[in-house]
Amino acid sequence: MKYSELFCPTLREVPSEAEVVSHQLLLRAGFIRKTTAGVYTYMPLAQRVLRKIMNIIREEMDRAGAQELLMPIIQPRELWEQSGRWAVYGEEMFRLKDRHNRDFALGPTHEELITSLVNADVHSYRDLPLMLYQIQNKYRDEIRPRFGLMRGREFIMKDLYSFDADYEGLDVSYNKMYEAYKRVFDRLNLKYRVVEADSGAIGGSESHEFVVLADTGESEIVFCDNCDYAANVEKASCLAPKEEDTSPLLDLEKIATPGQKTIEEVARFLGLPASRHVKTLLYKADGEIIAVVIRGDRELNETKLKNFLHCTHLAMAEENEVRKICAAGFGSLGPVGLPCKVYADLEVARMRNFVCGANEDGFHLINVNMGRDFVPEAVADLRNAVKGDKCPVCGKELEVQRGIEVGHIFKLGTKYSEAMGATFLDQDGKEKPFIMGCYGIGVSRTMAAAVEQNHDEDGIIWPVPIAPYQVIIVPVNIKDAELRVVAEEIYKTLLAAGIEVILDDRDERAGVKFKDADLIGIPVRITIGSKSLKENKVEIKKRWEKDAELVAVSEVLAKVKDFLNI
Amino acid sequence: MKYSELFCPTLREVPSEAEVVSHQLLLRAGFIRKTTAGVYTYMPLAQRVLRKIMNIIREEMDRAGAQELLMPIIQPRELWEQSGRWAVYGEEMFRLKDRHNRDFALGPTHEELITSLVNADVHSYRDLPLMLYQIQNKYRDEIRPRFGLMRGREFIMKDLYSFDADYEGLDVSYNKMYEAYKRVFDRLNLKYRVVEADSGAIGGSESHEFVVLADTGESEIVFCDNCDYAANVEKASCLAPKEEDTSPLLDLEKIATPGQKTIEEVARFLGLPASRHVKTLLYKADGEIIAVVIRGDRELNETKLKNFLHCTHLAMAEENEVRKICAAGFGSLGPVGLPCKVYADLEVARMRNFVCGANEDGFHLINVNMGRDFVPEAVADLRNAVKGDKCPVCGKELEVQRGIEVGHIFKLGTKYSEAMGATFLDQDGKEKPFIMGCYGIGVSRTMAAAVEQNHDEDGIIWPVPIAPYQVIIVPVNIKDAELRVVAEEIYKTLLAAGIEVILDDRDERAGVKFKDADLIGIPVRITIGSKSLKENKVEIKKRWEKDAELVAVSEVLAKVKDFLNI
Repeated sequence: MKYSELFCPTLREVPSEAEVVSHQLLLRAGFIRKTTAGVYTYMPLAQRVLRKIMNIIREEMDRAGAQELLMPIIQPRELWEQSGRWAVYGEEMFRLKDRHNRDFALGPTHEELITSLVNADVHSYRDLPLMLYQIQNKYRDEIRPRFGLMRGREFIMKDLYSFDADYEGLDVSYNKMYEAYKRVFDRLNLKYRVVEADSGAIGGSESHEFVVLADTGESEIVFCDNCDYAANVEKASCLAPKEEDTSPLLDLEKIATPGQKTIEEVARFLGLPASRHVKTLLYKADGEIIAVVIRGDRELNETKLKNFLHCTHLAMAEENEVRKICAAGFGSLGPVGLPCKVYADLEVARMRNFVCGANEDGFHLINVNMGRDFVPEAVADLRNAVKGDKCPVCGKELEVQRGIEVGHIFKLGTKYSEAMGATFLDQDGKEKPFIMGCYGIGVSRTMAAAVEQNHDEDGIIWPVPIAPYQVIIVPVNIKDAELRVVAEEIYKTLLAAGIEVILDDRDERAGVKFKDADLIGIPVRITIGSKSLKENKVEIKKRWEKDAELVAVSEVLAKVKDFLNI
Repeated sequence: MKYSELFCPTLREVPSEAEVVSHQLLLRAGFIRKTTAGVYTYMPLAQRVLRKIMNIIREEMDRAGAQELLMPIIQPRELWEQSGRWAVYGEEMFRLKDRHNRDFALGPTHEELITSLVNADVHSYRDLPLMLYQIQNKYRDEIRPRFGLMRGREFIMKDLYSFDADYEGLDVSYNKMYEAYKRVFDRLNLKYRVVEADSGAIGGSESHEFVVLADTGESEIVFCDNCDYAANVEKASCLAPKEEDTSPLLDLEKIATPGQKTIEEVARFLGLPASRHVKTLLYKADGEIIAVVIRGDRELNETKLKNFLHCTHLAMAEENEVRKICAAGFGSLGPVGLPCKVYADLEVARMRNFVCGANEDGFHLINVNMGRDFVPEAVADLRNAVKGDKCPVCGKELEVQRGIEVGHIFKLGTKYSEAMGATFLDQDGKEKPFIMGCYGIGVSRTMAAAVEQNHDEDGIIWPVPIAPYQVIIVPVNIKDAELRVVAEEIYKTLLAAGIEVILDDRDERAGVKFKDADLIGIPVRITIGSKSLKENKVEIKKRWEKDAELVAVSEVLAKVKDFLNI
C-alpha cells in the first residue's frame, strides 16, 4: 500500500473528548472516527487489525470443534419474553418497532436466539455436544458510553454457545473453550491473566475472565505469586483476619463532630486512622432498606452483597429514604440503634472499640463494639480484596493489577433451556433441558486493550500478529530519485514475500513521516537515507526499540523476517 | 468435517412458507432458519458460502484499489436530515430511539454516513480519488418480506463509495468497479448479464445492474443478440412502431358490454384481440389524478412514468378517487372525455379504430382514434419492453430473460455531497463538492441467486468456488470396517491437500446419505462401496452429472483436483 493512497487521516492534537489512551491514540492515528456517542466507524487500518483478531479467533474456535454461524441482530420480543429478560433488561437494551408495530431488540447477546434455534433442530443426545459461534455487532445502550471502544453502544463480539447432554459434558466444553481462549490471547501476543469471575446477572455456576493487563484498565484483579490463584476483585474471597484485637472493651461514648462527614474528615478530627472506623452504607435490596458495615478504609463489594442477599435489585438508598428511618444524613450513620437489618463484613466482627456515626447529624460514637452495642443480622465477606490480603488458597499475600476484561466464559447450566423449554431426548428416553455454556470475546475491545497495553508517548506499538501492516518503508526524501528507486525495489521484494508493507511515498519531511509511522504503530520501519545508501545500506528499526540497525539492501528481507519472527 | 458433528439439519418436507426454490432448498438443506419474517439465521454451511462470496468480493475490491472499513449500523437522524432522506425514506426504514430519546435509523444504506466521514477527513484534491467499502448487515422494513433471502428485512451487502474531484475521475472509478464486478461474478462462476438500469430514487446519471440469470428470477431483462445492448425492462427504451396503421377512421360508437370488465373479457366479447384495445390506468402523481393509456396487451412501466412526470410520489388511484372524477369503475375507463390529463404511450399514437372503456359502467367505445376523439397531454414511451421489440441500438428483435439483480453500480454525482455540504479544495483553489459513485452487491442475495440458477429436483448444485465444502465422502456402510478405513484414509489425504471435505460417518442407509449429499449440493461425491473396493476402486461423481467414474484409491486426489479444476 502506498501511503499517499491510504485513507489514514492522522491528527496532531489529542481530541478533547478522549479520556483514555486507546481512545486518544486510535483517534489520532486515524483508526476510528466517532459517529455519535459510543458508535464508531472502523477506518481501514482498524478494519485490518479487527480482521486479524477475528481470523485468529475463528481458527481457534474451529480448532476446538466449534462451528460458525450468523444470527440476526434484530430479535423479536417474543424470544426475550420466553426467557423473562424483555422485562429485566431495562434501558440498556435498544428496542424498536417494525412497520406492523411488532417489538424487536437489537441483540445485546444471543442466548435466547441460539437456544430457540438449537431447540428447533436438535432432538437427540446423539447430536450433542454442539458448539456454535458468531462474530457480530452487539448493542448496549450504555447510560454514559465512554473510553472510545472500551464502553461503546455498538461493538463487535465473538459469542459462542455450548450445548451438552450433562454437566460432565459442560465441563469438557468449558475446558475446551478455556484452552482455546488461552491460545487466542497467546497468539494475539497480549499479556493477560485468567481470573475467577463472578457469574453475575447472566447466571450460572462457574466463570472465568480473560484480562489483558494494562495500568489504565478499568478492572482490578488480585492474584497470588505463590500459587495459581487469580480473581477479579468482585469475585476474590477475603478471609476473616486471623489476628483478633484483644484490647479491653471501652465504654461507648457519643462525641460531637461538627461538620465532619467523610471518614477522612472524622479520622483527622479524632486523630484515629480510617482503619479504626466503620463505614455504614444503606442499600435498598428488592425494596427493603438494609445497612452494611465495613471497615472505614475498605470498599464495599456490591456483587458479593447482592449474591449474599440473593436479591434481584440492589441500589444505594436515596437520602430521603434514609431520612425516613433515621434522623441523620449519610455522613453520620452507624449500626447502633439503626431500625433496619445490619450486615457486617468479616473484618468488622474482629474490630474492637471502633468509631461510627451516631445516627444524629454532627455526632459520632467511639468505642463501639459489635455484639455489645449492636447485633448484625449476619456477618459475611462483603468487601473488595486489596493488595496484601491473604490468598484464599495458600495464605500468602495477594498482589493487585489492573487490566481490561476482553473475554469471559460462563457455565450457564439450564438457565435458558429451562426457561425456554429447550429439551432433547436423552439416552434414557427422557426429555431433558440442554446444559449450556456461553463464551464471549470483545473483538473491538481487544483492539483497544492491545493499544492500552502497547503504546508509548509517540503512539501505538502493535503486537506483530495484529498489526495493520507489518513494515513501513520511509525514504527520507521522495524527490531523491535514488532513494525512491531503492524504496520501490525493497517494497516490491517485501510484497513478493507476502509481507504487508506500506511505502511512504508522500512528499513530506522525514520528521513528519517518522511521527506518522510511530503514531500508527507499524512494528518494523525501514528508513532509506542518502548517507547509508552510499554504503548500500538502509536502517531497520523495531517500533519498540530505540536504536536502528544498518542492514545491506540485499539483506533486508531476511532481517525483516527475523524481526517479525516469521 | 465429520457429518455426525456438522450442524446441518436437513428437512424431508418442503416448508409450506417457501414460495421460491432458493428459499425451499436453503431451508431444506439446513442453510438458513427463519427467526421472524424476513430475518434469518445463516447456519454453518451458509456461513461458509457467505464467507467465500465475501472473500472473492474483498479480493476484487482491494485489487481495484478500494479500502475496506466498517461503518455503524445505527445512524443518527441528524445525518439523514442533512440529505433530506429522513423524511423521504418512509416506513421502509427501521427507526429507533435511544434511552435519551434521540432518533436513529438502522442503516438501509450508507451514503449519508460515508459522505459525512469523508467530508470530515478529506480536504484536498490530492487525497482523491478514494474508494471505500464495507460488508455488513443492511436493514429495510419491507411491507411483505418474502422469497427467503431474496427480499429480506435484514440482509448482507457489500457497499462501496467512490469520491472523485471531477466527472472524468468518476468515469474512471465507475469503470474500475464495472470491471471489478465482472471479475467478482466470473469468479463466483455464475451466469449473469450486465444491463443498463434506471437510476431510480437513489438519483444520479448512469447505472448498471448485474443480473444472475435464472428462470425464476423476479427481474426481467431484455437484450439483443445482434449487438451488446442489454437493459432491465424498467430501463429498456421502446421505440415508436415504424409501421403506421393507415385504415380509414371509422365512426366512434358506444357498445353495451354488460359485465365485461377486464381487457380479456371485453376482447372475447367483441371478438377483437387485446392489441386492438387500449387500457386506461388512473394514477395519483404527487396528489394529482392523471390517466395513462397503453395498448391492451402491454404493461405500464411505472418507472418510466415516474421519470417522465418528474414526480416524487406515484401510486395507482383508489377506486373512490376514480369515482370522484368519473362515473365509471376501473373496468370501464377510457380517455374520451375523461376530466384529467391523459398521457399516451407511443404505440397508442399509431393505433386506429381501437376499443376502450366508455367511462360508463357496462359500456365500451369502439373505433376510437387519438387526436380526433381525445387529445393527450403528451405522448411518451411508457410501457415495458417485451420479447420481439426492436433493439433501440441496432433495430434487431430483442430477447427477454429473467434474472435476479445481485449488483448495482450508480453514478451519484453531487447528489449527497451538495446536500450535505461535503467539499474539497480543488487544484484551482476552489471549494467543490465531491463527485460520488456508489456500488452495491447483495451478498446474501447472491447466495440465494446461486441456488436459483444452480439446482435440480434433488437439491442445490453449488458452483465450486462458493460450495460450503468441495467434496463429500460417503462410505455406503459405516459399520463395515474396511469401507470405514478407506474412507478415513481418503479423508485424511484430501484434508492434507487443503481440500474442504465432509466425511459422512453417520450410521444411516446409503440412500439417506446420497439424498443429503445431493440436497446440500457438494460438488464432488466419493462413494465407497464393497463391490468396487474389491478392485481397490471408489466411485467419484460430479453433482451436476449423472454418471460416476470408477477411480483407483491411489488416484482419488488427482481426480478430485481435476474435477474441481484446482
